[in-house]
Order: sequence, then structure tokens, then C-alpha cells
Amino acid sequence: METDPGFIAAVEEARKGAAEGGVPIGAALVSKDGTILGRGHNMRVQNGSATLHAEMSALENSGRLPASAYAGATMYTTLSPCDMCTGACILYKIKRVVIGENKNFIGGEEYLKNRGKEVVVLDHEECKQMMEKFIKEKPELWNEDIGV
Amino acid sequence: METDPGFIAAVEEARKGAAEGGVPIGAALVSKDGTILGRGHNMRVQNGSATLHAEMSALENSGRLPASAYAGATMYTTLSPCDMCTGACILYKIKRVVIGENKNFIGGEEYLKNRGKEVVVLDHEECKQMMEKFIKEKPELWNEDIGV
Repeated sequence: METDPGFIAAVEEARKGAAEGGVPIGAALVSKDGTILGRGHNMRVQNGSATLHAEMSALENSGRLPASAYAGATMYTTLSPCDMCTGACILYKIKRVVIGENKNFIGGEEYLKNRGKEVVVLDHEECKQMMEKFIKEKPELWNEDIGV
Repeated sequence: METDPGFIAAVEEARKGAAEGGVPIGAALVSKDGTILGRGHNMRVQNGSATLHAEMSALENSGRLPASAYAGATMYTTLSPCDMCTGACILYKIKRVVIGENKNFIGGEEYLKNRGKEVVVLDHEECKQMMEKFIKEKPELWNEDIGV
């Protein structure tokens, strides 16, 4: 699953976020047939955004879609999704959430399962290292991003 | 509570959304001391946005804030919040959610309560009428907005 184009896109997005001096989390939304509908990264620093976490960026960049487009879709994300991104996946009835890592942060994984979603955690080395470095270097920015 | 400046702002935002031909839902985020931090309305039609529901617009328009700014805050919204907006209120530890109406849609109210939030439903006549008219006139747009 680490070689899925959606996961590779999510990691690329996280790297972009890091290169831009932002929160290094990326995501990609992939339809049932394997098409990448949208991809994006956290835009807190870049856009001064309180809502564009990586998964939200991927949804936003997918544009307006009917419910049928999300059916059977997978959200790939480099980090365990927060409560907001968890809720967004539930709103759009996304089927599966594939998570790069949950060592640096654990979000709504249990709630996703309770709401019928398939959750896969990859424990991906690069995802962990990017977050670990970021949290160490910019703890205040990280706390702001997760509301603590 | 219907005369709270935050609720009045939310209703004004919903009217703006209706006037723009969009989804007529508005919201305002108000700090503990009564300051309106941000207000906004659903931007699906106006921005082609899949993520800017009214509550998300209010959060986005509040800009980047530290967690302390959200402490004790109230989210006023004209309609019961969907799972995404519910999650966003939980992420930022918003204390109270004041809802114009939940006759046309019931979102994450129970989950908000389970997560320790105060939830108030006003059963507000104008909020109900705006949504009822909208759903009757544009059912496909409404379904797209709530992912059904």
C-alpha cells in the first residue's frame, strides 16, 4: 500500500509543505477506480489557513463533486487525521483512510472505525521523520495546528 | 440567545448566502469575551468549495489563532452542523454550539455533547424557512453539500 499512487502523492505533498516552511502533512483523495481526485498539503503557514489541513486541501482541490464520486474512495494521509479531517471523511462517506503514521499524533481513528470506515496505518518511516523533525523545530506552530 | 450579536451575524451571513444563490447557511465564531472572531457563510457555489461550509468559513475568516483564543468560544450557526463542522468545533475545543434550527437537517449534535460541548437549539423561524425554501428549490445542490 506504500506503493499506491495515492500514498506516494500524499508523501510528495508533505515534502512540498516542508519545503515551503509549513506543516509537513500531505494527503490525496483517490476514487474507487484509482483516479486521484485531488491532492494537497497543510496550508496553515502558506495561506494563513485554520481549516486547510492536508486532508481538507485534498478535498478542496478535488472541487465540487456529487456524492457518487466519493463512493468507495480512499483518503491517503501522511498523519493520523484530526477530529476535523475525520469528520470531513465521514461527511463525504469516504470508504477507507490510509494513514502514513500515528506515532506523532493519533486523531479520530477509532471514531472512523465506529462510523464504518476502513482504517489502515502504515507506520511509514519518512512520514514519521518529517513530523518528528517538524514538532521538534516548531512546537508552537504544531500546537496551533492541533488546537492545543 | 436569538438576540446575541453572534447569532444575528450568523443569520445575516445565511441571508447573504441566499442572495448570492448559494447554500443559505451562516455562522459566526465568538470568543469568551463576546468578540466576533470571524463570520462567514457556505461557499460551495460562490467558490466551488467542498470544504467551506458556514462554520468552516467562520473559522477560516477568523484566521490563524492560538488555542487560547478558542477557549470558551461559541460557534453560532443557522443549521445543525454536519460531521465535518462538528469535528472542526471539537478540534478547536469550542465550548458551545448555538444552532438556529435542526428541523431540516440534524448533524453531529449528540457527538458534540459526548465530547463535552454545550449544544443549544433555537428552533428559529427564519432559519427554518430559508433552509426549507432552498431544499425545495435546489435539492441536488443540497444533496451535494451533505454528501448524499
